[in-house]
Amino acid sequence: MASLQDILVSAAINLLTALAFLAAFAFLRLQPINDRVYFPKWYLKGIRGTPTRSGAFVSKFVNLDMNTYLRFLNWMPAALKMPEPDLIEHAGMDSAVYIRIYLLGLKIFVPLMVLALVVLVPVNWTGKTLENIKDLTFSNIDKLSISNIPPGSIRLWAHLAMAYVFNFWTCYVLYKEYKIVAKMRLEFLASENRRPDQFTVLVRNVPPDPDESVSEHVEHFFCVNHPDHYLTHQVVYNANKLANLVAKKKSMQNWYTYYHNKYEKNPSKRPNTKTGFWGLWGTRVDAIDYYAAEIEKLSEEVIVEREKVISDPKAIVPAAFVSFKSRWGTAVCAQTQQSSNPTIWLTEWAPEPRDVYWDNLAMPYVELTIRRLLMTVGLFLLTFFFMIPIAFVQSLANIEGIEKVLPFLKTLIEMPFIKSIIQGFLPGIALKIFLILLPTILMTMSKIEGYTSLSSLERRSAGKYYLFILVNVFLGSIIAGTAFQQLNSFLHQSPTEIPKTVGVSIPMKATFFITYIMVDGWAGIAGEILRLVPLVIFHLKNTFLVKTEQDRDQAMDPGSWNFATSEPRIQFYFLLGFVYAVVTPVLLPFIVVFFAFAYLVFRHQIINVYDQTYESGAAFWPDVHRRLITCLIISQLLLMGLLNTKKAARSTPFLLALPVLTLWFHKFCKGLFESAFVIFPLQNAMIKDTLERAKEPNLDLKGYLQDSYVHPVFKGGELERPQVIDEEENNPLVPTKRTSHRSSNHGSEIGSDTAGF
Amino acid sequence: MASLQDILVSAAINLLTALAFLAAFAFLRLQPINDRVYFPKWYLKGIRGTPTRSGAFVSKFVNLDMNTYLRFLNWMPAALKMPEPDLIEHAGMDSAVYIRIYLLGLKIFVPLMVLALVVLVPVNWTGKTLENIKDLTFSNIDKLSISNIPPGSIRLWAHLAMAYVFNFWTCYVLYKEYKIVAKMRLEFLASENRRPDQFTVLVRNVPPDPDESVSEHVEHFFCVNHPDHYLTHQVVYNANKLANLVAKKKSMQNWYTYYHNKYEKNPSKRPNTKTGFWGLWGTRVDAIDYYAAEIEKLSEEVIVEREKVISDPKAIVPAAFVSFKSRWGTAVCAQTQQSSNPTIWLTEWAPEPRDVYWDNLAMPYVELTIRRLLMTVGLFLLTFFFMIPIAFVQSLANIEGIEKVLPFLKTLIEMPFIKSIIQGFLPGIALKIFLILLPTILMTMSKIEGYTSLSSLERRSAGKYYLFILVNVFLGSIIAGTAFQQLNSFLHQSPTEIPKTVGVSIPMKATFFITYIMVDGWAGIAGEILRLVPLVIFHLKNTFLVKTEQDRDQAMDPGSWNFATSEPRIQFYFLLGFVYAVVTPVLLPFIVVFFAFAYLVFRHQIINVYDQTYESGAAFWPDVHRRLITCLIISQLLLMGLLNTKKAARSTPFLLALPVLTLWFHKFCKGLFESAFVIFPLQNAMIKDTLERAKEPNLDLKGYLQDSYVHPVFKGGELERPQVIDEEENNPLVPTKRTSHRSSNHGSEIGSDTAGF
Repeated sequence: MASLQDILVSAAINLLTALAFLAAFAFLRLQPINDRVYFPKWYLKGIRGTPTRSGAFVSKFVNLDMNTYLRFLNWMPAALKMPEPDLIEHAGMDSAVYIRIYLLGLKIFVPLMVLALVVLVPVNWTGKTLENIKDLTFSNIDKLSISNIPPGSIRLWAHLAMAYVFNFWTCYVLYKEYKIVAKMRLEFLASENRRPDQFTVLVRNVPPDPDESVSEHVEHFFCVNHPDHYLTHQVVYNANKLANLVAKKKSMQNWYTYYHNKYEKNPSKRPNTKTGFWGLWGTRVDAIDYYAAEIEKLSEEVIVEREKVISDPKAIVPAAFVSFKSRWGTAVCAQTQQSSNPTIWLTEWAPEPRDVYWDNLAMPYVELTIRRLLMTVGLFLLTFFFMIPIAFVQSLANIEGIEKVLPFLKTLIEMPFIKSIIQGFLPGIALKIFLILLPTILMTMSKIEGYTSLSSLERRSAGKYYLFILVNVFLGSIIAGTAFQQLNSFLHQSPTEIPKTVGVSIPMKATFFITYIMVDGWAGIAGEILRLVPLVIFHLKNTFLVKTEQDRDQAMDPGSWNFATSEPRIQFYFLLGFVYAVVTPVLLPFIVVFFAFAYLVFRHQIINVYDQTYESGAAFWPDVHRRLITCLIISQLLLMGLLNTKKAARSTPFLLALPVLTLWFHKFCKGLFESAFVIFPLQNAMIKDTLERAKEPNLDLKGYLQDSYVHPVFKGGELERPQVIDEEENNPLVPTKRTSHRSSNHGSEIGSDTAGF
Repeated sequence: MASLQDILVSAAINLLTALAFLAAFAFLRLQPINDRVYFPKWYLKGIRGTPTRSGAFVSKFVNLDMNTYLRFLNWMPAALKMPEPDLIEHAGMDSAVYIRIYLLGLKIFVPLMVLALVVLVPVNWTGKTLENIKDLTFSNIDKLSISNIPPGSIRLWAHLAMAYVFNFWTCYVLYKEYKIVAKMRLEFLASENRRPDQFTVLVRNVPPDPDESVSEHVEHFFCVNHPDHYLTHQVVYNANKLANLVAKKKSMQNWYTYYHNKYEKNPSKRPNTKTGFWGLWGTRVDAIDYYAAEIEKLSEEVIVEREKVISDPKAIVPAAFVSFKSRWGTAVCAQTQQSSNPTIWLTEWAPEPRDVYWDNLAMPYVELTIRRLLMTVGLFLLTFFFMIPIAFVQSLANIEGIEKVLPFLKTLIEMPFIKSIIQGFLPGIALKIFLILLPTILMTMSKIEGYTSLSSLERRSAGKYYLFILVNVFLGSIIAGTAFQQLNSFLHQSPTEIPKTVGVSIPMKATFFITYIMVDGWAGIAGEILRLVPLVIFHLKNTFLVKTEQDRDQAMDPGSWNFATSEPRIQFYFLLGFVYAVVTPVLLPFIVVFFAFAYLVFRHQIINVYDQTYESGAAFWPDVHRRLITCLIISQLLLMGLLNTKKAARSTPFLLALPVLTLWFHKFCKGLFESAFVIFPLQNAMIKDTLERAKEPNLDLKGYLQDSYVHPVFKGGELERPQVIDEEENNPLVPTKRTSHRSSNHGSEIGSDTAGF
């Protein structure tokens, strides 16, 4: 067990690492050449054009102004300066609410930390149990934890009382936060500009009709059943093949650009390539001609396929985006059941156009339920048995195994240096690769489950990742052994024994988790701000591919923060905080530092870096809340088990009330707030409709909605963003000139794709 | 353990009892004097007027036609003759679907029985385990059960295979049945005549407004938010005090009638009464004058209170029945959320007027969630710890205890005869009283939970009663000891041990449950058709109270069958069938006989006796289905435990798939059919609206709905039934003359109540 000194040394190392990352960041971000990596959002918004600051050529790449280096931490106050309403306008509601999760951590854990340090640490310190036991190595950390309290001591009532105080405070903060976020969301929805999805409903499982096409059938059905409200509809094409062709063409264009640039730099030698896989084998040809011809060919194929998709009635999937004359009519259609058969004519609010996951729009009901069953079983197996195939791969991936399969490598492998590398490296590599692939695997599983919007896919993946972390990181760290072994031992233990088994080992793992927080939390967050991988990729792309301004925009595209992986990780810190608040209060300061630091960094990142692809209006908050409640209940059960082993069984009835009350609190909050995240109430719809009718009585809504839900391949390779333009029109930060430039850019892009390269 | 012979003797006894009951029924029902007890529904429908068949005076009371006695079982084919559509029209959808539960039992268990007897019984019989164990008493029944199979035998695969066959067959039948019932319900709703609840939505939690009354607030809100559809609304008065006064007046009127009849029979002596409690003490007064004066006084109070309620704005609760111009508008309002605050302006389909539970209409959201939390905890305590207070009462209620509390009874109690009676009687009496009161307790708990319709109250109570039966009757019979002891032992066992503990004792309890089925099932059902208690009560009332035809109608009122207690009891038989189908197949014939007999009897009863107070359109079917699935899963888990103790652990993975598949099947069915029981789809609403508009273009809907949702006390003591009259108008079985007579009766009744006695 690590002593207090070890912890302090480790803290110092990690702090230094974090500071080194910060210093590197401070240095790198000041170099104009990196400007597009560290401030891409401003370029995308059109506010920054070029990183030029002074006239000299060198200063285009290197910052020579020494003064700026002195204020190398000044991004921190800058990150905090932007007020929340501006932040929502600048970065979107999703991002603004996402960083509130870190703030929530501070709100919960700062008072908890103060209370725990003032009340519980003295109680534990004077417990004097560990000193009396001989032949036991213990650290000062343990003297500050509940381990130092003798079993059955009256002091345990202090822990019990604090558990109540902590839980009530947490629930209070959670309630307030849920209320605020719900209010923010409703205000956001109310203040939003006109968007296509406000008038549109996604209709799935349109039943087949022998006499009518899907389009006619949809029109007739809604004309009859929503006669006063139906406006228009857009059918959905199965454009997967077309999308593949377009993607292939785009990759060819990249290669063409690469060789073209190469040729321009060195006109004396025309570059060659091979026609085979990845240019590794096949006949050698002139690269520029080859790719130009390929692009030509693909362009024709794209045109043919496009015609085929549009003219073939079988290419229309049994789903449609149906638009209504008013938000009221849309809200009605989205919330009601249309047919007596609940598996056809399914209606739901359309996701915004950028958010649609097009591949899943056509899926029959029976197939959907079977897919979900299989994925549930799959998730269970993945969570508990993932070690089995990995262990199998690891058993193969030893030196003897490689020599057997690839005997010609034998001489190479037998070299002492390479052998030692392989021996040190191989055992862990299968697990590492698996962990890197895990988010992708989970996202694929969510896609198979058939969700129709990117935001819901992210939310579902986050849920799966949370389960995985809970079982394999949290429980796996506390109890040695694989998840499968745990599951097996849990199945053969009584339900009252499980919390005891886990609870009793919790105090012993405190130092491990403190180190974990510092390595994964502190240094990890500092690494996040440094953006090392995007930095390298941007410079590579910039050197080899970028030809036009538009190419550079694409190369610097920062993407969005990844909700599916980052949110479950935050939840893990919440869980650690809840579990150790009563048991080992000295862990709390580390958690608080993590939340404060992460809040700062992510606020900086969403202001300057990330560009959300869609806006769900913080639709993820009910998930966040539910998982926090799960963490709370787990911590309560573990405390119950721990106190039981401390021979404080009389406290069990008092502790039993906690999960019951917490569950009730969850139900209560759910009833109060959840609907704000699912439903658009009729009253609010009516208010917006009335306002709009008064302001713009002659609005051509049908024209506005005409092409809003068209598969992106029909628009040319990437999603058009009508509502971004919409927002920009009202955004004083963005000069109108720039906007028109950007949309004309888009136009030419579409043109180049439809008319061929 | 009972031998096969014991079982046969017991079967014979119970069959004879059942036959005796049936013979008594056959005899009693043929006596004209009992006609109103055994065929009240026909009187209520107005088809039978008087039981007179021949002219003689005696034959008014006693049936002298000997021929009819010979055909004493002819009610059976008569009960089966009425086809289902007629049955729905005659007795209502609820009743028609309710008896389908018995039919479902037959559909499931007859093929199971045949298969089990053909396949499993020979396999078990030739197992030859029990014969080889010496010093073990076993019966022939056990030789037919799985106990006769040696542990680890290959024969167990037959049981495993049959478990799959049984479960698939059950799920198939359940699926078909759910589909049929959903279709029946939709057809029933589509074919229904115009009813007030088709146009009405119950709005609860109307927020307070400082400037407007509840009525104005409701009107303004719906005028604004449903401008094209809102028609009218009716406020709800808090008329609990008024209802009490009316009830008191009614009881006084009963007493007045009683003494008046007494006086008329013996005019020489005016009856006396005492003014105190139950006429036991107080000053002696002339009974007729006293009650006449009391009724006079109460009538005045009723008038004053009625005025007060109608004029006092505080008597209006924050709830209202809002009516719309079309079914479409109603369906929209009922299915959507009105306000951004989901705890105000709650809308749901209004229950039909007879079905409204008026006391619960005004309940704020927070109070509601707290009440439900308390009732959940209460139900848990009631289910697992009800034996504690009963044991306490039993410990008090011994002879010494009574002598201590009531010493003056000592001499009486010490008499040997009385003492032995008390000693034999007392120990069980507290439990007996509790079990008799249990349905009332559960119904009260459901009422506290705040449900707004009688049908939902019944459904909730049924769920509670099911849990109680499951824990205390099923588990309590299999494992000795109270539910609390079971809970305690389960908590200290591993989850895999519990099915083993229960599973291993299941074969041993087969004979017990066979006896139970015969006593509670066979004889109980025969007792149901005899209606001994209503028979006695009717004749008592008829002798002492009945003065007018209307009084007789009231005295014979059969009420409705009690869903809350009878449905969970059926579920218990399903559970026994599922559990023993694989383990002890000889139990199945007893179950099949029960279902067949019960189907016959209840079909007879709903045709001839029961009169439903409300019509929910089989809204209970999703509950029935869910509980059947629960029974299935319990049986699967217990089989898993049993096979585990049989050292057939290799079968566990195969068995594990069963509950997973069953749960998936449940979710699948829920998605397919449940909405038909909750939601009225817009398409169907539109069809009905269009039809009606074509048929009756000049309908005065507002006038039709005017007073449909008025608290019954404003209508005079009992519920008016607009839609019954409605149905009768279209029912060719009912002569119109009679209808007008009945409604004029109603009119006079209202008159007598509003104008005073």
